[in-house]
Amino acid sequence: MRRTIPSVETLVQGILSGDRVLLGRAITLVESTLPEHTARAEEVVNRLLEHTNTRPTLRIGITGAPGVGKSTLIEALGLFLVSQGHRVAVLAIDPSSAVSKGSILGDKTRMERLSTEPNAFIRPSPSGESLGGVARKTRETILLVEAAGYDIVLIETVGVGQSEIAVHSMTDLFLLLLLPGAGDELQGIKRGIVEMADLLAVNKADGERLKLARQARAHYLNAVHLLPAKPSGWAPQVLECSAEQGSGIAELWLAMETFRQQVTENGFLIKNRRQQAAYWFKEALQEGLQNLFFQQAEIQEKLATLEPLIQEGKVSPFSAARDLLQIFMFKKM
Amino acid sequence: MRRTIPSVETLVQGILSGDRVLLGRAITLVESTLPEHTARAEEVVNRLLEHTNTRPTLRIGITGAPGVGKSTLIEALGLFLVSQGHRVAVLAIDPSSAVSKGSILGDKTRMERLSTEPNAFIRPSPSGESLGGVARKTRETILLVEAAGYDIVLIETVGVGQSEIAVHSMTDLFLLLLLPGAGDELQGIKRGIVEMADLLAVNKADGERLKLARQARAHYLNAVHLLPAKPSGWAPQVLECSAEQGSGIAELWLAMETFRQQVTENGFLIKNRRQQAAYWFKEALQEGLQNLFFQQAEIQEKLATLEPLIQEGKVSPFSAARDLLQIFMFKKM
Repeated sequence: MRRTIPSVETLVQGILSGDRVLLGRAITLVESTLPEHTARAEEVVNRLLEHTNTRPTLRIGITGAPGVGKSTLIEALGLFLVSQGHRVAVLAIDPSSAVSKGSILGDKTRMERLSTEPNAFIRPSPSGESLGGVARKTRETILLVEAAGYDIVLIETVGVGQSEIAVHSMTDLFLLLLLPGAGDELQGIKRGIVEMADLLAVNKADGERLKLARQARAHYLNAVHLLPAKPSGWAPQVLECSAEQGSGIAELWLAMETFRQQVTENGFLIKNRRQQAAYWFKEALQEGLQNLFFQQAEIQEKLATLEPLIQEGKVSPFSAARDLLQIFMFKKM
Repeated sequence: MRRTIPSVETLVQGILSGDRVLLGRAITLVESTLPEHTARAEEVVNRLLEHTNTRPTLRIGITGAPGVGKSTLIEALGLFLVSQGHRVAVLAIDPSSAVSKGSILGDKTRMERLSTEPNAFIRPSPSGESLGGVARKTRETILLVEAAGYDIVLIETVGVGQSEIAVHSMTDLFLLLLLPGAGDELQGIKRGIVEMADLLAVNKADGERLKLARQARAHYLNAVHLLPAKPSGWAPQVLECSAEQGSGIAELWLAMETFRQQVTENGFLIKNRRQQAAYWFKEALQEGLQNLFFQQAEIQEKLATLEPLIQEGKVSPFSAARDLLQIFMFKKM
């Protein structure tokens, strides 16, 4: 059963007037793999990009090991931001969601209060077989929600390495959540993730865990001082908070605002976004080019003949590649 | 001034009859960036691949920090192998050679004795702006020298990380040379490099350094025991040698032979070479596809218009990619 797709005009006007249902429909188009959906989604995105909002946006990536309290923190931060007059979109990248049926943000009750806020928009991770596909869809959704007037975009990710890198490549600021007491070996956090973080926050700094949180903070303060300087010129900060009790949230946002101010003034924010856009453009081009290539029947046939010969060392991989490219070049598509 | 290129037939017959000058000419064609050279080189390689030699070959990657004595070791090992009836080719990957005018193997006097051996063939690193290009050329040259009857191929690389990975992706066995006494922090060797090694050899184990060499060996024996098991099923060995004095060379070759026997019997040697061929095929295809794409005048023009818009966030990177792919699809090449 297929629903009719709203027209580009309907979607654009709907999103601009704050219609969340139509925003959701547009995101569904972005997430679709049907070419007619993708084409329409892109038209919507480009139409919306023309309405550049003068209000600056901030894209925040949030990661941390399972159990660190990411959803609770996002709810607390989101509610705080909404109370300050911001419009907040919450997205997620979780390549495992196809299997686990949306482990991240899938269960909306985890953000019960935030999800009822008119100025908050929560969207679970798109599903998809590859991280690349999931990431691409989320990257496009950022453009949609920003065009729809959400000025703060929070993007949650699971703590598994590759998805952090994807989120890092589409955000302005990267927040790493930590548990009190445990060293990073125990938290399963790779050194590379710590290096990506602009802010580190020890969550669950409350009650009996307060002392452990202090220790963890001291440990990470030491660690970040040993890291090489960041291209943004920003020196990472280590904070404490308790998302459950709502403590440290204002301080966290203050640090984010300070970060934003610094990278806006020194030009890194814009420079970084430009580089990110160029990166995603290159990725999309590569992926599209390969799809074009491999979907040709003649290429597939020749590939089936060549692959065993290449693997057996009967044909040079380089001349095989050249043969295929030759076929592609002279074939009318 | 351009020399005439020998015909494919001349090159093939010359190489098969052991003509080193014609082998050198064929490698020069492989290294050339002119399309007519590449095409002819590939024809030569494929013609030669038909003459599959029944003699098994072994491809050995050799790395280590500057000053560890790679060239001296290669000369000692090469002379030993030639004395055992092998035919030895020595290649190199050094992406910096374009700048430094061939720092690796460029100075043939560093292998004075080996270079005069009729059963040894020494070729400096191809030059090129990118590691990818340099690596691809060396990978093709392996096919040429093997087709020319060299059964042992030694490939030297500088100790800088990326080039080790390239060499690892085209060899059967990876040898890491170490200095006596110094821990790997001091030798500037990344942990990943140690993990790739099948054999580690502490060189300069002679005279007063003998004791230090023992210590280094013990240190690395410990280290390799902590590493995860290799897909080849081979447990890395740590040896000692003195390339200058010629000690430990026979033992090094014995370990290499043992390795070869084990991975031949368990099927890893063939499986690994198949995977490597598939990898290089994919790489060559990607590179060729992108070249095809970006050399189109219409693509270049559109790209010049789109790139600033993408970077300024006026156009979605994804729809820009789609636009370009559309042009490419409907353009006759």
